[in-house]
Amino acid sequence: MDEIRPVILKGDRVVMLDQRLLPLEEVYNEYKSSDEVAGSITDMVIRGAPAIGVAAAMGIAVEAVRLTNDGAGDLLGALGGACDRMALARPTAVNLAWAVERMRGVMDRIGPQGTEAVRDALVREANAILAEQIAADRALGEHGAVLLKDGETILTHCNAGGLATCGIGTALGPIRVAAEQGKQIRVLADETRPYLQGARLTCWEMVRAGVPVHLITDNMAAYMMKKGEVDRVIVGSDRIAANGDAANKIGTYGVAVLARAHDIPFYVAAPLSTVDFACPSGDDIPIEQRDPEEVTVIYDRRIAPVGCAALHPAFDVTPNEYIRAIITEHGIVTAPFDKGLAAQRR
Amino acid sequence: MDEIRPVILKGDRVVMLDQRLLPLEEVYNEYKSSDEVAGSITDMVIRGAPAIGVAAAMGIAVEAVRLTNDGAGDLLGALGGACDRMALARPTAVNLAWAVERMRGVMDRIGPQGTEAVRDALVREANAILAEQIAADRALGEHGAVLLKDGETILTHCNAGGLATCGIGTALGPIRVAAEQGKQIRVLADETRPYLQGARLTCWEMVRAGVPVHLITDNMAAYMMKKGEVDRVIVGSDRIAANGDAANKIGTYGVAVLARAHDIPFYVAAPLSTVDFACPSGDDIPIEQRDPEEVTVIYDRRIAPVGCAALHPAFDVTPNEYIRAIITEHGIVTAPFDKGLAAQRR
Repeated sequence: MDEIRPVILKGDRVVMLDQRLLPLEEVYNEYKSSDEVAGSITDMVIRGAPAIGVAAAMGIAVEAVRLTNDGAGDLLGALGGACDRMALARPTAVNLAWAVERMRGVMDRIGPQGTEAVRDALVREANAILAEQIAADRALGEHGAVLLKDGETILTHCNAGGLATCGIGTALGPIRVAAEQGKQIRVLADETRPYLQGARLTCWEMVRAGVPVHLITDNMAAYMMKKGEVDRVIVGSDRIAANGDAANKIGTYGVAVLARAHDIPFYVAAPLSTVDFACPSGDDIPIEQRDPEEVTVIYDRRIAPVGCAALHPAFDVTPNEYIRAIITEHGIVTAPFDKGLAAQRR
Repeated sequence: MDEIRPVILKGDRVVMLDQRLLPLEEVYNEYKSSDEVAGSITDMVIRGAPAIGVAAAMGIAVEAVRLTNDGAGDLLGALGGACDRMALARPTAVNLAWAVERMRGVMDRIGPQGTEAVRDALVREANAILAEQIAADRALGEHGAVLLKDGETILTHCNAGGLATCGIGTALGPIRVAAEQGKQIRVLADETRPYLQGARLTCWEMVRAGVPVHLITDNMAAYMMKKGEVDRVIVGSDRIAANGDAANKIGTYGVAVLARAHDIPFYVAAPLSTVDFACPSGDDIPIEQRDPEEVTVIYDRRIAPVGCAALHPAFDVTPNEYIRAIITEHGIVTAPFDKGLAAQRR
């Protein structure tokens, strides 16, 4: 099966699968500037913390290509501004800031060597971030697959698959590897309102990979757990604090509380780049509040009466005490997470 | 404010607000036979356990009118068949069976007095069931309002308002009465996938009643609880077992688990007719499994890829240990619920 490549760098453009149109249509958009890419991140053409990091890096690379072609005078100054704006595209995913910082580091190091050298180095760095992410996914998947037993049903929330990471996924990576190893694994996918990433993206990936999947609405998870139909929960993360508290798509915290109430192991799967060591705990993670109209309107149809307010926190934080293990590309971390994560950082 | 009348009996027809079209359109459908009414219950033109009971009774009454007008030979036999079919319209709500049994009781008692007498008695009985439900809602609301304090935020799931009961609602009744008493009450409405009764119906009722309401997706409830923004939870019920275990719209059990984890009181509000004393515990309540396409398709748009299976349990059961109190028209019952409910039955 061909792997999904939600974002690639192709000459002077970033080519991105428009995830808003899945699963009905597979449309690829092209972007030629950093600001266009930043806009596509804000508008959720691409989403998922690692994929956002890759896209941001590619956006800056393509900006360097564009500015060099245009013969811009102050390349580093212009790129610095593009980095500043890119970092604001979405607030919660730490990989965005992390990728932008890596690109800034290249600019600082290679800057003295001149325009072409900076451009080439930025393109290389963006592609390196992609390649590293693909490798990290695979390593994470191998570590995580050890936790999954033949015949188990794994519940996941939102989409932390290849569409979200560029590789085989973080939450879905261990499932993919376990399936490759011949284990019979079934997935229960929370649909994940309001954006329906579970229904639209996780189910699409699982059907594509030949892994049996059942879609449920978010509010069915507790019923399935009580019936004994959930063996484990694996989710991704947009930012993990140094103490292991993990921000992820809204609803994740609720799933974690339900999992504990039913004595079901709850795992977070994310590359180490998702850990924000500057962030002591989940209280310090900014939670993006998005437009309530994304809740009150589904596919152009209003579901709530005029005059009805709505709320749209896009993420929540799961405190570390609900997390049985954090799976990264370096292995499996258990409590105390602060020590375990710091050890992986080396 | 005019009260909502989701179903009324008008001569030879049952007039029903088509709740599937709310909040965008207020359309009233007319039905002239019991089977048409049964079909409208199955298809969810009307929903909510008490309202289903009222509609079922009115469907049988209108059938008696129709058969009498047509000069049917075996009125009681034909009505008995209609009752049998009506009872199958939906499996979980006990009020449906309860209302059908009341109508059967009238047929048994009045049968010997002849066709017209049976018809008139059935029409009276159906209207009596409606009137009793309206009165029960009001009494329940008065009892429940005592539990709600000025300034509180109440989370509710699905719609247990006037649309579901024909009066001021069960879960929403105490909120309505508390607001009438001048308490500042704010409602958080779970949207309640897949049918979105919270978004479409509860928000519509609250906006109409002038009660401040915020719509959230089902998966935001835990986040709001953790933020301290939920003071109490009130939900309705489709069937309460003799021990207090309560079946209600899918997702209710999850909300109950989350409420307990956050030390938030969780109440069930329902008329005593919702208690099935023949049902010892929640394990004995049948759970309706509906068409998975109601999950995979939203307003004619597919949200999951072709080849993706889905599940659609329409209800779940909340064990009595999660319930702080059951509010009925006779007062507030706390544990042990078996004793308290039996005492209300007298």
